[in-house]
Amino acid sequence: MKISQMGEFGLIQRIRSSLRAFQQGAVVGIGDDTAVVEVSSGHLLLFTSDTLVEDIHFKWDYTSLRELGWKALAVNISDIAAIGGSPTYCLVSLGLSKDKETSLIDELYEGLKEVASLSKVGIIGGDLVYSSVFFITISLLGQAKREEIILRSGAQEGDLIYVTGELGTAAAGLACLEKNSLPIGQSVRESLIERHLKPFPRLREGQEIGRRRIASAMIDISDGLASDLTRLGKESDKGAVVWEEKLPVAPSSKTVAKTLKQSFLKWALYGGEDYELLFTVPPNKRKLVQEELDFSCSLIGEVVDKREGISIINKRGTRTRIEGGGYDHFSKKDDSCI
Amino acid sequence: MKISQMGEFGLIQRIRSSLRAFQQGAVVGIGDDTAVVEVSSGHLLLFTSDTLVEDIHFKWDYTSLRELGWKALAVNISDIAAIGGSPTYCLVSLGLSKDKETSLIDELYEGLKEVASLSKVGIIGGDLVYSSVFFITISLLGQAKREEIILRSGAQEGDLIYVTGELGTAAAGLACLEKNSLPIGQSVRESLIERHLKPFPRLREGQEIGRRRIASAMIDISDGLASDLTRLGKESDKGAVVWEEKLPVAPSSKTVAKTLKQSFLKWALYGGEDYELLFTVPPNKRKLVQEELDFSCSLIGEVVDKREGISIINKRGTRTRIEGGGYDHFSKKDDSCI
Repeated sequence: MKISQMGEFGLIQRIRSSLRAFQQGAVVGIGDDTAVVEVSSGHLLLFTSDTLVEDIHFKWDYTSLRELGWKALAVNISDIAAIGGSPTYCLVSLGLSKDKETSLIDELYEGLKEVASLSKVGIIGGDLVYSSVFFITISLLGQAKREEIILRSGAQEGDLIYVTGELGTAAAGLACLEKNSLPIGQSVRESLIERHLKPFPRLREGQEIGRRRIASAMIDISDGLASDLTRLGKESDKGAVVWEEKLPVAPSSKTVAKTLKQSFLKWALYGGEDYELLFTVPPNKRKLVQEELDFSCSLIGEVVDKREGISIINKRGTRTRIEGGGYDHFSKKDDSCI
Repeated sequence: MKISQMGEFGLIQRIRSSLRAFQQGAVVGIGDDTAVVEVSSGHLLLFTSDTLVEDIHFKWDYTSLRELGWKALAVNISDIAAIGGSPTYCLVSLGLSKDKETSLIDELYEGLKEVASLSKVGIIGGDLVYSSVFFITISLLGQAKREEIILRSGAQEGDLIYVTGELGTAAAGLACLEKNSLPIGQSVRESLIERHLKPFPRLREGQEIGRRRIASAMIDISDGLASDLTRLGKESDKGAVVWEEKLPVAPSSKTVAKTLKQSFLKWALYGGEDYELLFTVPPNKRKLVQEELDFSCSLIGEVVDKREGISIINKRGTRTRIEGGGYDHFSKKDDSCI
């Protein structure tokens, strides 16, 4: 079977079962936002990596090296945020072509340093290799207390589903990049584009969710709500419904979608790259989320029995299954996902 | 300036100085085989990553996925060995094309698992992305006691230079792969080829060197003796001489070199990928190395003042500078180094 037929989900499951014996000693191995190892009683080490590849994850036409550096580290920080931890140190592996100017490397590191400073991450090593295709792999360490981490696997039936910020904004930003002449204001346009090129990891939010122990499960939205909710559901062995009218979409994203005759709902569900946090909360903690958190978030659905799958309900009560469906790196629909 | 003009050494130095402020809290940052962070008093966390890229670091013509998996992890373990530590957990990032068969991924993981089992390494996560060029980045964690790590930077004038195993063997193996019809025995040929495709990291040796505190500095030979001795010299702010007649080269490597009218000395100095350990020993510990170690190694030279640079002396007393000169990923001589 070809990789494209099996898809990312299938491939990860296959690797995971073949590596069962190699998870020994890990608190969390393959199957969450980050791997987790206990270094001393109650003190956990988090360990994650993420790669961006030229023409797959970004296009040079509208991505500067500085933005790329920012994004490459930010998406890793988002994984640490999604477990409720704090990032500490990273390594940067670069695949570069020989004919690039060295000043471009400086630019890339400017972006890396910018987000590293904001998130207090040390950049302490890495690897430089030649490659005809540019890629950057960052591996990031983090730390957390055992009682504060939130895994993907803890959701219970009846838990409420929340999301930080807004959905579909990164997709709206990408649409702005691809269409130069949209009839929208310059500042709106720039702000949407920034959300695509320089996602801001929800580190503070993830840490507060962990510290206050309000969530039963958490994941960051990298591949789209549909895809990442499916992941969370699978790890928790549960289903989920989201309420269409409750999905938080910025008015500016709606305007762009309307102008382009696109569906902002599709962007919200399948757009990906929003790097918001999706988390489930036991009903008895609802008040705490609504009244005591230092940030706002939206209640968008409910955890249900796994036999119900992952679905969305619209105002008229029509229910549609949305399992998977986000950005799957190896599926055939790669380029149609937005 | 183009990356090719600056070369790997120059580029790393440039990145290193731009990142000075980001090394905070690290015991060792950029500039050694692995980054080192203290996790609790005296207990160190080691953190390293290494990448292999299709057609740069290996050719599909003569590399199986299983061998590639082995090598990708083995070269990282070698970095942990070179500081005297023990590897613990790794993440595997793969850049794959969609049209590959999934069974190939299984093969790759077989090789990874083989060396992971032998070295007691857990494979606890990673990242799968699409890429038109295949690459594999492994990031590896390790542990060590503070008093047992051996850095590149501790060599003193007068220290003796030792190397484990033999030099130029991986280059001889590569030559065998590239020439099918060499007049040498099949078993010799296979054993040389294995040294190229499946290098065996000197983990036990590195750990013994650390535990017995016999070395003042250590590095693994990934890019060739000349190149890696230059690195060790630079970090220690010292020069070095090696004695040509003392370089350990296997008789089979000499035979292959002779048959191909190549210089086995060049292979030993510039071949790279031997993954032997190069270490310096204070003269008063010479007896300990010769009589008490659990493995054999060869005395090949001496640490000298940095103004003397890095050089080799032949039987007739002729001295030749050999600074750098090994495999530099970005230099113009990439393909002429073996």
